Amino acid sequence: MSAVTTEPATTDTGLRAGAFGNAVALSCRECGHRLDLGPFYACPECFGPLEIAYEFPTVTREEIEAGPANIWRYKALLPVPADIEQSPNTEPGFTRLLKAHNLGATLGIDNLWVKDDSTNPTNSFKDRVVACALSAARELGAKVFACPSTGNLANAVAAAGARAGIKTVVFIPSNLEKPKQVNSAVYTDSLVAVDGNYDDVNKLAQEIAAEEDGWAFVNVNVRPYYAEGSKTLGYEIAEQLGWRLPDQVVIPVASGSQLTKVHKAFQELIKLGLVEDKPVKIFGAQATGCSPVSVAYKAGVDAIRPVKPDTIAKSLAIGNPADGIYVLDICRETGGAVEDITDDEVREGILLLARTEGIFTETAGGTTVGVLKKLVETGQLDTSLETVVINTGMGLKTLDAVADKVGPAATIAPNYDAFVETGLTS
Amino acid sequence: MSAVTTEPATTDTGLRAGAFGNAVALSCRECGHRLDLGPFYACPECFGPLEIAYEFPTVTREEIEAGPANIWRYKALLPVPADIEQSPNTEPGFTRLLKAHNLGATLGIDNLWVKDDSTNPTNSFKDRVVACALSAARELGAKVFACPSTGNLANAVAAAGARAGIKTVVFIPSNLEKPKQVNSAVYTDSLVAVDGNYDDVNKLAQEIAAEEDGWAFVNVNVRPYYAEGSKTLGYEIAEQLGWRLPDQVVIPVASGSQLTKVHKAFQELIKLGLVEDKPVKIFGAQATGCSPVSVAYKAGVDAIRPVKPDTIAKSLAIGNPADGIYVLDICRETGGAVEDITDDEVREGILLLARTEGIFTETAGGTTVGVLKKLVETGQLDTSLETVVINTGMGLKTLDAVADKVGPAATIAPNYDAFVETGLTS
Repeated sequence: MSAVTTEPATTDTGLRAGAFGNAVALSCRECGHRLDLGPFYACPECFGPLEIAYEFPTVTREEIEAGPANIWRYKALLPVPADIEQSPNTEPGFTRLLKAHNLGATLGIDNLWVKDDSTNPTNSFKDRVVACALSAARELGAKVFACPSTGNLANAVAAAGARAGIKTVVFIPSNLEKPKQVNSAVYTDSLVAVDGNYDDVNKLAQEIAAEEDGWAFVNVNVRPYYAEGSKTLGYEIAEQLGWRLPDQVVIPVASGSQLTKVHKAFQELIKLGLVEDKPVKIFGAQATGCSPVSVAYKAGVDAIRPVKPDTIAKSLAIGNPADGIYVLDICRETGGAVEDITDDEVREGILLLARTEGIFTETAGGTTVGVLKKLVETGQLDTSLETVVINTGMGLKTLDAVADKVGPAATIAPNYDAFVETGLTS
Repeated sequence: MSAVTTEPATTDTGLRAGAFGNAVALSCRECGHRLDLGPFYACPECFGPLEIAYEFPTVTREEIEAGPANIWRYKALLPVPADIEQSPNTEPGFTRLLKAHNLGATLGIDNLWVKDDSTNPTNSFKDRVVACALSAARELGAKVFACPSTGNLANAVAAAGARAGIKTVVFIPSNLEKPKQVNSAVYTDSLVAVDGNYDDVNKLAQEIAAEEDGWAFVNVNVRPYYAEGSKTLGYEIAEQLGWRLPDQVVIPVASGSQLTKVHKAFQELIKLGLVEDKPVKIFGAQATGCSPVSVAYKAGVDAIRPVKPDTIAKSLAIGNPADGIYVLDICRETGGAVEDITDDEVREGILLLARTEGIFTETAGGTTVGVLKKLVETGQLDTSLETVVINTGMGLKTLDAVADKVGPAATIAPNYDAFVETGLTS
């Protein structure tokens, strides 16, 4: 495997047959230029982002339903080999789609669902994308599996790398909170703390990818494969609704990749005849402290102006989102919107989801639920339409966000009379 | 629903038809006395523990496989109604069974699997039992859903209660660490802190159950229904192995209920013709600081001498385990064993599982993996036989256990040269 580059090797790739399943090429999202599958992420013609292009065979609902209860049931639609289940991986996905009766009633939405990705192996949707990146790293002959990250991605990469038995190096800012360090260091001896902010860590990762042979940085030089993992969220929503698309979906926006991939998944299912064609309004959710896409959406402009993030929703805090312009396109074209909320509203969103549906989400999920609420209040979301909101992570990872907002109703002596005085008897 | 009692109501129960599925009675584990299904847990004749008795219809693999990817695929084998999926619940279970190549190679076990229950809705196996208790509470007309707990059970009850929209009161010791309080308080306004230890909290719960009508304490007066939820771990292991029993299973022992129910599940599957009859050796795992069952096993005696727990494995710290004598019977009869390890070995077990399989477990899981290792080292476990080890919980809940044992390999300046000096380049 060669390092990050915009020039594909012209020699034989050395890939085994079917290494990437039904994927046939890399294709530039901007200019459409095509190149052979390899460890490339930027178009050699225009520097646009590369995506995976497929030639799908006929895929039936029955074939998918006969697959395992994880993302590999959709392996025919991903850039992975047909024998992917034989390679040790974390087996993420096929998480709960819960009918949200209580949250729906509270917000006045008739028909609401929560897609809950907090129950993935390392408790965020990142396990999906990392599983696809791991497969690409393996097929490309990578010697090292790596990422720069401040949280969920680090956990997912470190865990997947340990299970796969591949050398795994994870880069984090050195001022990261101890619990978050532990949650990655528990899996790997090769956690590297970098004196600098996330941007500095990211730049270092790009430098190493350029200098070293055989390093697969999941979100750098194997990013096209990695990003495809998010499509499985869209596939699962449709299958779990009974092979049907919802009317509206609310999705958090960090880089914007997840939103674009869920949209892509819906389009693929329509083209493959697995669901009926219908319009789906797609909504993006950001925290006000890092809302470059929402700002552009509201201003009616096409360009994203980068921001310096200042929000508790750290897993959404990407100030210059790579797929932001595509998010704008999709939300506008489908009749959706992009909205943002304050950090206090993020905290309220966390509690709202916990109290109504028994799901303890992290700040990213609090953002998405809070934005859902705001979309209703501002009349941007049609409450008579079937709606899905995506929860991407888990509350124990951002405990501090609500630690001061909840606690015991009473502290009592250990006897019945003391309990009666609390007024909690029925 | 009446309060906790050993005398069933003689009047009409008021239960709807099929409220408990194929369950037909409560049956005393000690004397075999039978009584009608109701909120009872102790035999009116001998005070022995009550269990659920069933009259199972024919159940096929195909019927189960056509069910949802959660414990309700086994609803015909549980004390729940046929329409259980219609009542809001957390939809736990059908968690990963991972082939543990790396852990097996490290320990010298040819064919090892990890059943990973850390990916349940509130990240422990307790979601299984609480889902069954919630159904019983609902069918019995309970007004309040409650439990005494110090951790995983509190999380599971508070989350399930919120989702079900039933008044939920959770009792904890007032000196419980703040993160554990938050992890329950986020779901409910009715968290009650009690000045005392867990035994004091438990006694208060029994007092309230006796005094108040309509309170369903999951682990007190609906315990027979609750405990049945653990059978689903056994069902899933067999189904996920391809409708086949393993040769050996290693299971943590707190009250001992889980171990007895996994054994019961295997026996039921054999009787129903869903798997071939074969011997399964069952092993119990305890921490030395709370090892009353292991001590009795090693001493070759039948009686359990209660202990005062002193171990970091708090979710296993039950000094007087209710099902301890049944654990002894099962482990002896099947040719298994009960073993215990030190707190340092518990910590090592956590790291061993994380580094080999990418699973971050809590202290209970560290205990089980550590005991697995010790069973191999002491020749008590046959390394040539197919073995399953059960992980019941998740590491973020007991982060302190390993927080001082792991960390960054290096802290560097944000440039490539500084990274090269770490020696981590390939």
